[in-house]
Amino acid sequence: MHNLPIGVFDSGIGGLTVLRALRQALPRESFLYLGDTARLPYGTKTPASVVRYALQSTAVLCQQGIKLLVVACNTASAVALPSLRAAYAPLPVIGVVESGAKAACMVSRSGHIGVIGTEGTVRGGSYEREIIARRPSAQVHAQACQLFVALAEEGWFDTPVTRATAEAYLRPLLSRAPVDTLVLGCTHFPVLREAIAAVAGPGVTLVDSAQTVAQHVVHILENQGFAAMESKEGDLVFFATEGPERFARVGSLFFGATIRPEDVTLVDL
Amino acid sequence: MHNLPIGVFDSGIGGLTVLRALRQALPRESFLYLGDTARLPYGTKTPASVVRYALQSTAVLCQQGIKLLVVACNTASAVALPSLRAAYAPLPVIGVVESGAKAACMVSRSGHIGVIGTEGTVRGGSYEREIIARRPSAQVHAQACQLFVALAEEGWFDTPVTRATAEAYLRPLLSRAPVDTLVLGCTHFPVLREAIAAVAGPGVTLVDSAQTVAQHVVHILENQGFAAMESKEGDLVFFATEGPERFARVGSLFFGATIRPEDVTLVDL
Repeated sequence: MHNLPIGVFDSGIGGLTVLRALRQALPRESFLYLGDTARLPYGTKTPASVVRYALQSTAVLCQQGIKLLVVACNTASAVALPSLRAAYAPLPVIGVVESGAKAACMVSRSGHIGVIGTEGTVRGGSYEREIIARRPSAQVHAQACQLFVALAEEGWFDTPVTRATAEAYLRPLLSRAPVDTLVLGCTHFPVLREAIAAVAGPGVTLVDSAQTVAQHVVHILENQGFAAMESKEGDLVFFATEGPERFARVGSLFFGATIRPEDVTLVDL
Repeated sequence: MHNLPIGVFDSGIGGLTVLRALRQALPRESFLYLGDTARLPYGTKTPASVVRYALQSTAVLCQQGIKLLVVACNTASAVALPSLRAAYAPLPVIGVVESGAKAACMVSRSGHIGVIGTEGTVRGGSYEREIIARRPSAQVHAQACQLFVALAEEGWFDTPVTRATAEAYLRPLLSRAPVDTLVLGCTHFPVLREAIAAVAGPGVTLVDSAQTVAQHVVHILENQGFAAMESKEGDLVFFATEGPERFARVGSLFFGATIRPEDVTLVDL
């Protein structure tokens, strides 16, 4: 069990920011990453479709053998965790939404928590539900920041356009209430962290779902005694359901290190 | 034959700018529009997948009965026309790429033609090929403007962010060469026309693929004697392969008139 890899599932390449954080926190673990690029974005799909896609994608990872599953996709985390846990018990399944909500509740002093994500994540209200469940007095202020996804994929991490976009989205949110905590509720957003922080200002703590989920996984591996016993660096294996070339090229931006097209295996779901 | 509708196929909602132009040019025609929203965006898919999706989508339209097919999706226009023509002959099949390239060749005096589109369209080089085939001396200057897609879907048609983005994409393109014609090589871009025109300046003629394809269809219906004989306004029927609610909401922006969710029929491909 110890030496099985950790599975990471995302709708595409955004989850590579989560893999990057996991890799930094757990350098001796091996990882299997599956990006369901053929069917991204999940945010505009119906919950029933997202559950079906998540089950299919997880089946591929489980066939290879994994000891824990991280659902890096916010949309899938919001709707598919119960189905995944039921289908693959006793596999531990960790979602970015739970981790991010938990961290935000711990960090916020004012209780006014901002959440930014895709249109689908914000409309679904998943962060709001998870935050209120943990801290019923909290006030959640959510804002869809759809353009951030395109900015991240374009590699415009901190350009004048990025800052102007952050201003347009965040200024109204921050003027509405004394928000002191802002959850980056989309796996694409950590790469825009500088621009978002510059607009949000020093009084606002950013909660990076990639980092919080990595901390969460560290705890679970320790608690369950599942941590890798190897002393060497773990392996990385990438699967994509479409376009390994684009996965490698744009994915390298998110992963923060080069992924070569030949490292990405195409799987047909 | 005359009273059969015209089929319009797109990967999603962008093609509604094409439908809008068709509707304005041909108010007495009826239209069936199919947006393959479950599998958008096509631009990041492999050509083989795009051909398969286009054949499946067209099959749905042909089952209903159509007299002509407009492929509003640039990616599908670039790779799937030969397969569609072979599979559904003698159905006339019109693609936005051919129409846009033809118009650009007629309009340009300098022979320096700019083409803007999605990453997929620009990498595929379809406009370049179609332009050079018609005007071998032309110089084509292509620029991927991926963020324009997100700006259009966000409804930020002419905001400071839109203009700053247009500056970032178009200024280098326009300084490289005496471009006098700019092809809007993505169905999303006509709604950003004002912002694009403001940055391009009065010396650059914009070729709107939605309008040029509508003119093309007018000619074909006249030449083949297929035009509607009705004196009343034609009918509109919408199909989407996922998320009729979002199709209606965001689609209304592109269509320039309200589409109600109940007007959109979900089809499973």
